[in-house]
Amino acid sequence: MHIGLVGLGKMGANMRERIRAAGIEVTGYDRNQDVSDSASLADLVSKLPEGERVVWVMVPSGDITDGVIHELADLLSPGDVVIDGGNSYYQDDQPHADLLTAKGIGFLDAGVSGGVWGLKNGYGLMVGGEADLVEKVLPVFDALRPEGPRENGFVHAGAVGAGHFAKMVHNGIEYGLMQAYAEGYELLAAKDLVTDVHGTMRAWTNGTVVRSWLLELLVAALEQDPGLGAIDDWVEDSGEGRWTVDEAIDLAVPAPVISAALFARFASRQGESPAMKAVAALRQQFGGHAVKPAGTTGPVSSTTPAAGAAVPPSA
Amino acid sequence: MHIGLVGLGKMGANMRERIRAAGIEVTGYDRNQDVSDSASLADLVSKLPEGERVVWVMVPSGDITDGVIHELADLLSPGDVVIDGGNSYYQDDQPHADLLTAKGIGFLDAGVSGGVWGLKNGYGLMVGGEADLVEKVLPVFDALRPEGPRENGFVHAGAVGAGHFAKMVHNGIEYGLMQAYAEGYELLAAKDLVTDVHGTMRAWTNGTVVRSWLLELLVAALEQDPGLGAIDDWVEDSGEGRWTVDEAIDLAVPAPVISAALFARFASRQGESPAMKAVAALRQQFGGHAVKPAGTTGPVSSTTPAAGAAVPPSA
Amino acid sequence: MHIGLVGLGKMGANMRERIRAAGIEVTGYDRNQDVSDSASLADLVSKLPEGERVVWVMVPSGDITDGVIHELADLLSPGDVVIDGGNSYYQDDQPHADLLTAKGIGFLDAGVSGGVWGLKNGYGLMVGGEADLVEKVLPVFDALRPEGPRENGFVHAGAVGAGHFAKMVHNGIEYGLMQAYAEGYELLAAKDLVTDVHGTMRAWTNGTVVRSWLLELLVAALEQDPGLGAIDDWVEDSGEGRWTVDEAIDLAVPAPVISAALFARFASRQGESPAMKAVAALRQQFGGHAVKPAGTTGPVSSTTPAAGAAVPPSA
Amino acid sequence: MHIGLVGLGKMGANMRERIRAAGIEVTGYDRNQDVSDSASLADLVSKLPEGERVVWVMVPSGDITDGVIHELADLLSPGDVVIDGGNSYYQDDQPHADLLTAKGIGFLDAGVSGGVWGLKNGYGLMVGGEADLVEKVLPVFDALRPEGPRENGFVHAGAVGAGHFAKMVHNGIEYGLMQAYAEGYELLAAKDLVTDVHGTMRAWTNGTVVRSWLLELLVAALEQDPGLGAIDDWVEDSGEGRWTVDEAIDLAVPAPVISAALFARFASRQGESPAMKAVAALRQQFGGHAVKPAGTTGPVSSTTPAAGAAVPPSA
Repeated sequence: MHIGLVGLGKMGANMRERIRAAGIEVTGYDRNQDVSDSASLADLVSKLPEGERVVWVMVPSGDITDGVIHELADLLSPGDVVIDGGNSYYQDDQPHADLLTAKGIGFLDAGVSGGVWGLKNGYGLMVGGEADLVEKVLPVFDALRPEGPRENGFVHAGAVGAGHFAKMVHNGIEYGLMQAYAEGYELLAAKDLVTDVHGTMRAWTNGTVVRSWLLELLVAALEQDPGLGAIDDWVEDSGEGRWTVDEAIDLAVPAPVISAALFARFASRQGESPAMKAVAALRQQFGGHAVKPAGTTGPVSSTTPAAGAAVPPSA
Repeated sequence: MHIGLVGLGKMGANMRERIRAAGIEVTGYDRNQDVSDSASLADLVSKLPEGERVVWVMVPSGDITDGVIHELADLLSPGDVVIDGGNSYYQDDQPHADLLTAKGIGFLDAGVSGGVWGLKNGYGLMVGGEADLVEKVLPVFDALRPEGPRENGFVHAGAVGAGHFAKMVHNGIEYGLMQAYAEGYELLAAKDLVTDVHGTMRAWTNGTVVRSWLLELLVAALEQDPGLGAIDDWVEDSGEGRWTVDEAIDLAVPAPVISAALFARFASRQGESPAMKAVAALRQQFGGHAVKPAGTTGPVSSTTPAAGAAVPPSA
Repeated sequence: MHIGLVGLGKMGANMRERIRAAGIEVTGYDRNQDVSDSASLADLVSKLPEGERVVWVMVPSGDITDGVIHELADLLSPGDVVIDGGNSYYQDDQPHADLLTAKGIGFLDAGVSGGVWGLKNGYGLMVGGEADLVEKVLPVFDALRPEGPRENGFVHAGAVGAGHFAKMVHNGIEYGLMQAYAEGYELLAAKDLVTDVHGTMRAWTNGTVVRSWLLELLVAALEQDPGLGAIDDWVEDSGEGRWTVDEAIDLAVPAPVISAALFARFASRQGESPAMKAVAALRQQFGGHAVKPAGTTGPVSSTTPAAGAAVPPSA
Repeated sequence: MHIGLVGLGKMGANMRERIRAAGIEVTGYDRNQDVSDSASLADLVSKLPEGERVVWVMVPSGDITDGVIHELADLLSPGDVVIDGGNSYYQDDQPHADLLTAKGIGFLDAGVSGGVWGLKNGYGLMVGGEADLVEKVLPVFDALRPEGPRENGFVHAGAVGAGHFAKMVHNGIEYGLMQAYAEGYELLAAKDLVTDVHGTMRAWTNGTVVRSWLLELLVAALEQDPGLGAIDDWVEDSGEGRWTVDEAIDLAVPAPVISAALFARFASRQGESPAMKAVAALRQQFGGHAVKPAGTTGPVSSTTPAAGAAVPPSA
């Protein structure tokens, strides 16, 4: 088998390596010619076996993925297959399927999880689309997924879009899991009684109910930097968490944990919180409560009141 | 009638003024002799009419209230009454009642709401204790509460502790209300489409479903300082919010809104969030995601990827 | 002045009455001919003064509003003005403005708050669109808004869409406020110590920090039905709460309180929670914890263990 | 080595088996004589080697644990050691340590995780107390913990109480993790597009970021009962989750995810929600919104409105 792979970043390059290691020929394309196996998308397509071309697209979601798929729609032929393996929004998949199907080209959407560790461990794969196309690309999925039973690292989750939907929910869950561990970490770190925070979390990696791969990663991070002194508390969100909560709202599914995790990320990136300024302003209005003038540091000063001393205004 | 009032801070001093304006004689005591009407607690007690002394305690909750009540237990006589009007924890009330009752002294707990505006508008009162004691102190409650029907600003909520319990829940609700307005304020302020945030909230003060006294205060704050530029986003919590959530946990009552409002205050006071450092560390571990080194400012730099460019590691 | 009003439900009929009471002529239209002043939209338009027609649309948001505005685009003439006073999604406004503007017809979006009480109290109004159009319709806004200073019940919040955006945020806040009161109510009701829940909340209506119109309504509801025994715990959501959280996500504004209130409504409508079934299943898997078979009632049975008795599996 | 083990329920009996398999002699005691190795606590103590008795207590937390430890304080001798391995509240530990230390008896608190699977996989252990006592009991800890490096399943977390504190936080995290998976499960189950929910979650067990032991258990539960039709959505909480949130409040640590998970359990056990009845009542008051009379089933009926139809009262 011989496939094309568009996008050779950290993710794509690793995937190329893993697929090749499984004995499948891979021709890659990237704008960065230093890592590319072909000069252009057209060149890539020309190098693939006619009548059975399979092109895996692994570029940033949104406009870039859209652009690549439109180009491929012009370059490929009936019977060829395109797989979108990026973190695309699942509602973008059907338009891409429609565009390609109109030209006789097949489309699959694949959610891919595993990060930089996928090269070694294999990638968890969630695929949407028609069963005969899935069958055709199965050797590639088998090359990418972890060793062991296929069903423990791969699923054909449903029709077009189901793969990216599953990956979106996967990432929503991931937000919740990370926040749960993070809250637990902060509780341990805030308690003087616990003198070995790193050791405690490391002890959880075996035998306990909370053991997981994410926990192992957190232990590794604490190993490298106890106290996490070198890292800022600024956390990006990459889209899937937002989409998951949007979807929960659309489906009327309560999602208090996933949304709380998402909002914690938003808050982590705010230099200051307009909402909390409003709360501070309110307290000042009704109670004459002390507020911190903007730009000061440390807590509001207060004197220790003594017996018979004034009670602050009650609200 | 002639009562004693211990604690002449902003709250106590205003209450003294309002009670006197209703024709009730008030002798106050405060450690600060500049504002005190008596030299000591003993002096205060000696000035009150024997056999029918009523002493209203209005000092900070916890050790200070506890100390004053213990002193009064020694100074007062059977038939006298003590009212704790501070923001005491409701579970502190029964021990105080027991202490005083053992000496024949009556005890009432009174939650008092209204802040610095109570002098003019009257105070909302929630009282716990025995009915005959409530009856005895009623002229004082009537002096303090707002004009209008008694039941619209006063309640005998139940036995000892019920007054402070009701005040605690009142303040828990208050946290939720303030946070709801604050989130709405931030949404308006974040949206370029809305060019008159202050005017929008001011327009809500009449006719709308969200009209309230707190809203009027927020509009007043925006009037004084549009953009709230002079105020920090650092918000204290005074205990009742914590107690309310503790109580919700004890009663197995879901309290997602009040707890979210409380946690937002905790977060507002953190220079940096250990939890969010942990989340950032996790993202770096599994995905090689960019993190901000501690101490840098601004967002993580990223270059705009172009068609065919690398997709970042997918997680 | 003489205007047209489309939609004569509870809301529209009340508004017609209030506008007429202010001396403005109103011709209404509704599919229900029993309440309608005109036979059709075309008939309505024909009855309005040529060259200065003003038509207020007060029908359900979405397809119905969209249909009415499209019909009006065909029926009206340059110089006429359409106001969408329904609960439309703010992103629907610009397309409507574009459609009408292309024909020389003006468009304003108006958020209207006040419910069934607006007839008597007046309605809070938030308006988006061009200033000269706002000026033209001002007599109608003045008729609808509460007595008193215009700015306390009316705002020109910004360009097209700003009125509905402000109304959306208003309703999001409303969700949070209601949930805060509801949690407080449940806490009072769950506590045996508080023997007068209704009286406690009634006492909050004057003087306290939490006083508001919503609180008065809750007290009225408890007056009519102490214990709320006649009402189900099933709560609809009408769209604006969802839009508000979607917008918070889009703007990266943390909205823990408004989202918690929304999710509580979702949960209130679930016969059973798939998520909590999953949690119950997990507990059973790791700990052999008792689960309730579906369809049983009451708590899981458990025997009281005695000294030296087995500890349940620890997880 | 020869130790005593009090409490031979599912957890204790499994632990006895695992410790014996490691070559350590175990004499057990349980009120249930069918499983007990001794007739009474006194009998148990008499069978242990004098001067070096080690007694592991594995009974329900609270009064029962307290009772057993008080009995042991009378039965044991200086130099003996008691380990509380139950889910005790960490603040109960110091009083127990004080009681025993006054008699020269050592005390350790041990958090034990692993559930019914611990027999096979080993138990994660978090221990608090003095280092020399930990050293003395190390062979027992080594017998109980999973194979592999000691630090991956065991930690001496700090002084007395640290073991149970760590276990408490462990369980708080566990609540958050379970809720995150549960929300994700519900989202998948609610989406028609996903036709293989069980397969999707199973595919996550390898290679993905969300892989964990809890996920494997959820997949096992879905294997046995796709749709979880046989299980009720009623979820107990065993105390540690409540303590974790109480502790977060005490330490001023934001814990939105753990508290949301706890509140979801509370809600799962409510036949009806007083809070949501209050919200429904409020909506009825201000808007005349339809409410469901208590006891009816299905959604509120509504007729589809047509063009020009009444808009419901806007709030």
